[in-house]
Amino acid sequence: VMSSSSSSSLEIEIFQYIDAHQSDFIKDLKEWVAVESDSVQPHLRKEVMRMMALAADRLAALGATVNLVNLGSHQLPDGQVLPLPSVVLGELGKDPQNPTVCFYGHVDVQPAKKGDGWNTDPYTLTEIDGNLYGRGATDNKGPVLAWINAVETFRALKLAMPVNFKFVIEGMEEAGSLGLEKLLEEEKQSFFSDVDYIVISDNLWLSNKKPALTYGSRGNACFFVEVECGRKDLHSGTFGGIIHEPLLDLIALLDSLVDSTGHIQIPGIYDSVAALTEEERRSYESIEFDLEEHRNNCGVNKFLYGTKEEILLHLWRYPSLSIHGIEGAFHEPGIKTVIPAKVIGKFSIRQVPHMDLSVVEKQVVEHLEGVFSKRNSPNKLKVSMPLGAKPWLADVNDLLYKAARRATKTVFGEDPDFIRDGSTIPVARMFQTVTQKSVMMFPIGAADDGEHSQNEKISRHNYIEGTKLFAAFFLEISKLH
Amino acid sequence: VMSSSSSSSLEIEIFQYIDAHQSDFIKDLKEWVAVESDSVQPHLRKEVMRMMALAADRLAALGATVNLVNLGSHQLPDGQVLPLPSVVLGELGKDPQNPTVCFYGHVDVQPAKKGDGWNTDPYTLTEIDGNLYGRGATDNKGPVLAWINAVETFRALKLAMPVNFKFVIEGMEEAGSLGLEKLLEEEKQSFFSDVDYIVISDNLWLSNKKPALTYGSRGNACFFVEVECGRKDLHSGTFGGIIHEPLLDLIALLDSLVDSTGHIQIPGIYDSVAALTEEERRSYESIEFDLEEHRNNCGVNKFLYGTKEEILLHLWRYPSLSIHGIEGAFHEPGIKTVIPAKVIGKFSIRQVPHMDLSVVEKQVVEHLEGVFSKRNSPNKLKVSMPLGAKPWLADVNDLLYKAARRATKTVFGEDPDFIRDGSTIPVARMFQTVTQKSVMMFPIGAADDGEHSQNEKISRHNYIEGTKLFAAFFLEISKLH
Repeated sequence: VMSSSSSSSLEIEIFQYIDAHQSDFIKDLKEWVAVESDSVQPHLRKEVMRMMALAADRLAALGATVNLVNLGSHQLPDGQVLPLPSVVLGELGKDPQNPTVCFYGHVDVQPAKKGDGWNTDPYTLTEIDGNLYGRGATDNKGPVLAWINAVETFRALKLAMPVNFKFVIEGMEEAGSLGLEKLLEEEKQSFFSDVDYIVISDNLWLSNKKPALTYGSRGNACFFVEVECGRKDLHSGTFGGIIHEPLLDLIALLDSLVDSTGHIQIPGIYDSVAALTEEERRSYESIEFDLEEHRNNCGVNKFLYGTKEEILLHLWRYPSLSIHGIEGAFHEPGIKTVIPAKVIGKFSIRQVPHMDLSVVEKQVVEHLEGVFSKRNSPNKLKVSMPLGAKPWLADVNDLLYKAARRATKTVFGEDPDFIRDGSTIPVARMFQTVTQKSVMMFPIGAADDGEHSQNEKISRHNYIEGTKLFAAFFLEISKLH
Repeated sequence: VMSSSSSSSLEIEIFQYIDAHQSDFIKDLKEWVAVESDSVQPHLRKEVMRMMALAADRLAALGATVNLVNLGSHQLPDGQVLPLPSVVLGELGKDPQNPTVCFYGHVDVQPAKKGDGWNTDPYTLTEIDGNLYGRGATDNKGPVLAWINAVETFRALKLAMPVNFKFVIEGMEEAGSLGLEKLLEEEKQSFFSDVDYIVISDNLWLSNKKPALTYGSRGNACFFVEVECGRKDLHSGTFGGIIHEPLLDLIALLDSLVDSTGHIQIPGIYDSVAALTEEERRSYESIEFDLEEHRNNCGVNKFLYGTKEEILLHLWRYPSLSIHGIEGAFHEPGIKTVIPAKVIGKFSIRQVPHMDLSVVEKQVVEHLEGVFSKRNSPNKLKVSMPLGAKPWLADVNDLLYKAARRATKTVFGEDPDFIRDGSTIPVARMFQTVTQKSVMMFPIGAADDGEHSQNEKISRHNYIEGTKLFAAFFLEISKLH
């Protein structure tokens, strides 16, 4: 499996150690998966706490200085107050000659139970046909351990550490990373002051087989469009035909947003989208992406575009607008002949570099107010943007990406796909904004790992080769520094 | 109060009796209101049964032959099986020289409790400033008793009965008149064989002060428009911008139905709407209708039309289209960045004479399929009409209306408004279709009675003068026959 032709003897020694200790690494993953560290369900919060302590112990065993930072508590919608799990900050090595790489991961998981449709117990790591099934196997306990395994390998072989390590491990990622951004801000001048690079390994390859590096994600600007005619819902027999129905206004407003080809109709919205460079366009050609598989995954008959390049461009680096639904109108099965008095349309724009959130907001508001004013409706219109998450984009020419590309070539024998994510990755953007350091998403899981799904897994291959990948990356980033 | 200048001595005798027995009539209403005959809440079904027995006793005391017809039972959505209250069929008089008038009313009520915002106990009839407050006072126990009081007056005064009476009194009107249509069909050749006219007194005047006769109502054609792209909802980050979103298709379809002036955009939909005659147009001029009051009642800033005539024409005799909501899309507060896979839009057309339901259905389906095909969407479209209730229209030149107009002039000193209802009145249409007899809605409640609302009332004036109105009507219909 390993393409060792171009590997150095140091790499060969490291890789042999990793291969020889596969069972130990899998045993560690089995122990971590056994902890039901579900951060979503309140009654399991103590298991998340226990998991944080295990992660802290594991880092301490590497020789790292470990700080469990208390983030206080949070209140649930039902009024219950729960403690937040501490964030683990770890440091290993302080050689000023070495670059300092900070790794972020999380050890909390999504809910899972056998009855959801799992073939095996979700909290008992089970190997079947080379796959390691268990909740958290790929999201994100496996990758966190792969990083730790890689550091551990250097330590076990008594090799000089090629980099200084920092670790940020949290236990609330699946519940919105509560308190994390505040902690990053607070640690900006201290913990992060000497960090050169940030690596996040909390996503997947685009393909089942081909490695990838993730260098960008779209943002998410969410909009509410509220139209109101009065205080109470009305009977469609008694008022149908004589009033300006708010839902008719709203539907006309929503219908003005996108045409049937998927093109957003808001004037100016594409003006500041970063121009597509020739280099960037070429980078799409080699990406492994099975259109048919992707189509089957979502179950639609046909995409808006016919080629891999067009699909990926529209998923990653062009904005899209989706309408999610309407609050206040009749939504149950059956018939209710009501004229809703106040309706709120919900839509979002996945915006891309270099779209400015405040400009997007202004364009949306002006467009909707323009459409509304043409209707001469006496109703009240209110447009708001309750959430605006920015896109994230790294420079693929950063040393971080060079090192990761070389390590991938060494371990997997091929160049990684350079990919983005159509979804928003708040943690990447958060690290980039707060620390102003170069950020890379460095996945080791495959596209079919089923994160958040039943039968989540990481393959033994990806887990072990991923450990090698991180070790090789340490050597490469050290060499490039 | 009574304009007796044109009254006959017989009428004067009758009206004096009614005035003298006000307290008795109000005592009867108090007894009926005290029965919590709520047909909506299952645990009160036995009270409905008790109410039916009281109504049957009251008719029997008039000397009527009474038949309590068992309608079997029905199943609630939760699986519970409940007995249906019997329908009371009563007959009084069989003189072949007399016309036979059948009266329909119901003695079940909508739910009510003090905590809903009533100023008085809803089941204790309470007189304040000339108004009799209590659940069922106007809907529909008061009018049923007014009819019985009128018959009782002839009996008490030992007068010759001017008409033969039939009574249909049910206890499930507020829960959809379950089983009634089947019963009418079964009794078509027997109970209804010698009925000449049908009078329903289960609605309100258009005004607080001016009497009215109701001669028509709009129908209700309900439509479901379903658009589906696949089996599961999708993530707007992962699929936004590359698929034809079903909700975008649906919103375009819904937006094609009505323009901003309220005009239905479905080709041909107005083709068969009955032409407005000059006589009909003139009849709108004298109708008492306070636009400002109506606007305040619904709370909108402005109607689509500026004059009383335009408003009433569009409420009563032109079709309207209302959109009620969408099933399958996100409808809760907050944000969910989902692309719903299957959405169902719900709208209804209040259709009018002479629109044919099957033609309307065909026009709607063809229009939506045409709009959809222009979008080149690969999604699945399904349009259906799960409910089609026909409009009802009587001929205001029928003897029934002539007699009611004369009786109104006698009792109230002015001609009644001839009105329609924008809502659907299934029971009027049902009686007309099944019996093929002339049907009239003959209200005695005022526009501000608050049927189905808190503090429902009938005024002492309307209850007592309504009793006189029915008595005068018996004489008039007899004279015209």
